[in-house]
Amino acid sequence: MKRDINLTMLTDFYEITMANGYFQTGMSEDIAYFDMFFRRVPDGGGYAIMAGLEQLIDYLKNLHFTDEDIAYLREKNMFCEEFLDYLRDFRFSCDVWAVPEGTPIFPHEPIITVRGPVMQAQFVETMILLTINHQSLIATKANRIVRAAKGRAIMEFGTRRAHGADAAVYGARAAYIGGCAGTACAIADRDYGIAALGTMAHSWVQMYPDEYSAFKKYAEIYPDNCTLLVDTYNVLKSGVPAAIRVFKEMKPAKMGIRIDSGDVAYLTKKARKMLDEAGLRECKIVVSNSLDEYIIRDVILEGACIDSFGVGERLITAKSEPVFGGVYKLAALETDGEMIPKIKISENVEKITNPGFKMVYRLYDKDTDKALADVITLADETISEVDGYEIFDPNAIWKRKKLKNYYVKDLRVQIFEKGVCKYESPSVDVIRDYTAAQIETLWDETLRFENPQTYYVDLSQKLWDMKNALLSEHNGEK
Amino acid sequence: MKRDINLTMLTDFYEITMANGYFQTGMSEDIAYFDMFFRRVPDGGGYAIMAGLEQLIDYLKNLHFTDEDIAYLREKNMFCEEFLDYLRDFRFSCDVWAVPEGTPIFPHEPIITVRGPVMQAQFVETMILLTINHQSLIATKANRIVRAAKGRAIMEFGTRRAHGADAAVYGARAAYIGGCAGTACAIADRDYGIAALGTMAHSWVQMYPDEYSAFKKYAEIYPDNCTLLVDTYNVLKSGVPAAIRVFKEMKPAKMGIRIDSGDVAYLTKKARKMLDEAGLRECKIVVSNSLDEYIIRDVILEGACIDSFGVGERLITAKSEPVFGGVYKLAALETDGEMIPKIKISENVEKITNPGFKMVYRLYDKDTDKALADVITLADETISEVDGYEIFDPNAIWKRKKLKNYYVKDLRVQIFEKGVCKYESPSVDVIRDYTAAQIETLWDETLRFENPQTYYVDLSQKLWDMKNALLSEHNGEK
Repeated sequence: MKRDINLTMLTDFYEITMANGYFQTGMSEDIAYFDMFFRRVPDGGGYAIMAGLEQLIDYLKNLHFTDEDIAYLREKNMFCEEFLDYLRDFRFSCDVWAVPEGTPIFPHEPIITVRGPVMQAQFVETMILLTINHQSLIATKANRIVRAAKGRAIMEFGTRRAHGADAAVYGARAAYIGGCAGTACAIADRDYGIAALGTMAHSWVQMYPDEYSAFKKYAEIYPDNCTLLVDTYNVLKSGVPAAIRVFKEMKPAKMGIRIDSGDVAYLTKKARKMLDEAGLRECKIVVSNSLDEYIIRDVILEGACIDSFGVGERLITAKSEPVFGGVYKLAALETDGEMIPKIKISENVEKITNPGFKMVYRLYDKDTDKALADVITLADETISEVDGYEIFDPNAIWKRKKLKNYYVKDLRVQIFEKGVCKYESPSVDVIRDYTAAQIETLWDETLRFENPQTYYVDLSQKLWDMKNALLSEHNGEK
Repeated sequence: MKRDINLTMLTDFYEITMANGYFQTGMSEDIAYFDMFFRRVPDGGGYAIMAGLEQLIDYLKNLHFTDEDIAYLREKNMFCEEFLDYLRDFRFSCDVWAVPEGTPIFPHEPIITVRGPVMQAQFVETMILLTINHQSLIATKANRIVRAAKGRAIMEFGTRRAHGADAAVYGARAAYIGGCAGTACAIADRDYGIAALGTMAHSWVQMYPDEYSAFKKYAEIYPDNCTLLVDTYNVLKSGVPAAIRVFKEMKPAKMGIRIDSGDVAYLTKKARKMLDEAGLRECKIVVSNSLDEYIIRDVILEGACIDSFGVGERLITAKSEPVFGGVYKLAALETDGEMIPKIKISENVEKITNPGFKMVYRLYDKDTDKALADVITLADETISEVDGYEIFDPNAIWKRKKLKNYYVKDLRVQIFEKGVCKYESPSVDVIRDYTAAQIETLWDETLRFENPQTYYVDLSQKLWDMKNALLSEHNGEK
C-alpha cells in the first residue's frame, strides 16, 4: 500500500521521553545494541515465519520529524528546545541485521539486531515490534492453515474482519508469504500482485427473482471464470441445481460453486455427487465459513469434497492467538570501543535475556538438508563445518549432542549500514517460494500442530558462560 | 491519523465484480437498501459499543477511483470499458443512517443502513464492515476492562502488538471511546488529543550502572511527573528501595512506580507498604503485565494496591475474541417506487435476516432512564409514548410484555443524504463522555461479564409479519 503518511510519531511515548533523557544527559550518541526476539510460538506451534521486513525498511528509510510533530512535542512542555532542534535534522544512522522474510524462526533468537546511538536504536522499538509482530503472526498462522489443506488452495478472505486497513493489506501480504494462493483484497493485488479473486455476495443472488436468473446473468458477464454462490436459500435443493442448469446452458470456461454456510463436509459430498452426475466433474467446490487449520484438517479427514478454501476472520486476526509477543531488549553497550554486555533479569527464567552482540547460525544436515539446530553465538564466533559441533540445552546443560556432517548458514543479513539501506526486499512471490522451501527443511516433529518437538536453539559455550557470569554478578549484588 | 491514502480499492474483489455486473445488466441504478448488523457480542458480553463512524465518513467522502486504480482494473481483462469510464467519475450518492459512536448496540439491530444505487451501496460493504467491526471490537473490549477497574484509570499500552499502524492508532481511539484514560501511542495524542503517557523502558535502567543512578537521572530531567519502572532486576529488593531513595532526595511533584512483571497482587501490596512506611503515600502504583478484565477484577479482589493499569496486547487485539462479526446484507429493493423487502434464508435460524427498510427505537423508563428494550420497526412505523407498547420475543412470540411509562429515542441519525455528509463527528472526548452516560442506562444484568441477561431487541408486529410471510413464501417455493 503506497503510503504518504509519516509514521515517525507512531511510537510509544516513552521512546520520546527516553530520547530526550539521553539527549539531556549527554548519552544520546552512546552506542547500544538492541535485539528483537520472541519467547513462544503462537498456538503452541513449533515454528514461526518471519515477515514484515519490507514495511520495516520503508519505515526506517523515511524516519523524520515534521514541523507539526515538533510543534506537538513542544506543547507537551516536557522536552528541551535543543532536543527539539535536534529532531528537526534527525536521520536514522544505525546498523540493522535481520532474518529475511519467509524464514522459519524460533523463540529467543535475535531476529533483528539494531546497533547505533542509543537514542535512535531505542526510538525505533515500537515500529520494529509493531511491523514484525503483526506480519509474522499472520504468516505463521497462514502457514499452519495452508499445511492443513494438504495442497488445496487457501484464499485469504478476511478484509472485512481485519483490525483496520493495514491489517487487511499487510495481513493479505503476510498470508501470501505464509503460503496462501491469493486474496479477496483488491488493493493487495494492485500493490503487491497477490492475485485477487471474488465473484458474488448473497446480495447478487437476492437481487434477482431466483438463483437461476442470478447465476445465468453472472455467467453471461463472466464466461471465463464462473464461481456461483449456492447457499443463499438452500444449497442442495435450489443452489446446486440452479448452478448445474446454468453451467450446462452456458458452458463457462472454468466453473465452480461456493458454499458459505452449513455443514461443509456433508454439503460438499452431496454437491460433488450432484455435479458429477450432471457430467460436471471439472466444476470446483470452494468453501468459506469460519475456517481454520483444525476445521480444514477435520473436514478433509471426513472426506469433504473441497478444491479450495476461503479463510477469513480466523486467519486475518489469527483468532486462536492474535498476539505475536516479540520484544526488543538492550543487549550491549560500547564504551570506548569496549563491548559491555547487558542482561535483563527476571523472576521468570524464560524472561531473562541473552546478553551481548550475537550471531544466529542454522546447521543443516548435509545429506537431508534438514535443519538440525540453531546456535546463538557471540558476534566474533564462527562455527566450523569441519570439526563437528557440540550443542547443549541452555536450560539443562548436561543434555549435550555432538553434531556432524552439517553445513552452516548465517541466519541474518545486514539490512542497514550506518543508516543506509543495503538490502532489497524480494517480491512477495520470491518470498513465498522461499518460505515453502524453508518449511521443507523442518522435521515433521517440528511441523506438528499440537505438542511439536521443540527445535534446538542453543547458546554457544562462550555466550552461555558470559550469561552465567552476568547472572551470578547480579545475584551477588543483592 | 491524517491519511493521503486512497482507500477506495481496499475492497473485496467481488464488490468490483458485482459492480461491473450491475453496470452491464443495466441494474446499477436500481435502488437497494443494505443493513450492517452483528449477530453476537464478543466474549459472551451483554452489549457492544458502536465505534469507527468518523473514519467511515472520511472514507465515504473520499471515495474515488484514480487512473492507477482503473489501469489496474483494466489489466484484469474482466471489466468492460464503459464500466471503467463510469468509475472515473464515480461519486458516492447514497443515503446513510447510522448509530452514533459510543452508543451501546445489540445483536440483529441495523446499526448502519445504506440506501442508494445498488452498485454503490454494495461497493462500500467491505470498508463499512472493516471500519465499524474493528473499532466496535476494541471499544467494546475496552469498556469491559474499564468497568473491571472500578474507577481506576486504564491506559492503552498496546501499540507494539497491534495488527499494523491503523490498528494501533484507531485502536487507541476506540479504546478511549470505550473509557480508557489515555494511551502510550504518541500519534493518537497528536491527532486525536488522547493524552499519551510513558516514562521509561527496562533499557533505560540497564543503561546505567544501577537502578538508583537511572532513577535519579530520570527524576532530574522530569521533576514534574516521575514514574519509575522498578522491575528490571528485583522489585522489592532493589527497584522499590532505589525509587524510594530517589523520591526522597528529589521530591518530584508527582511520583509513581510501575511494575511490569511478577505477581502484581503480592508485589503491589508489599510495595505499597514500603512506600507508605517511607512516607510516600502520594506515590502511585501502576501495573502493566498482560492484563485484561478478568485479571484486573481478580487482583482488585485480592486486595492489590494499584492506582492505574497499563493494558497492552489483550486490549489492542481484543485477544479473548478478536473478531467483531458485523455483516452487511441486502434488505430491500425499490422498483418503480415500490419497496420490495428481501430476505436471506439460512438453515441456521440466527442467520436469517430482517427484511425491509427499518428503524431502530430504544425505549427508556421515564423514572430511572434505564433502557427497557430496543424495537426494530419498518421505516413508516412510530412508537407512541402515550399508549404503551407490547414487545414480544421474535423467537418465542408467546413471550409478551406491555411497556408503559417510557420515552422513545430513534437510535440512528442520517449521516449522508444523497452522498452529502450531513453529520459532524463529535470529538473523542465528547464521544467518551457519551459512552459513559449511555452505559449508565443499562441494567447491571446486561453489564455482567459472564452470562449477562439478554437485552430485549424485538421486532414490531408489522415487521415480524412481513418476515414471516417471506419465510413462508420461500418455504413454499421448494
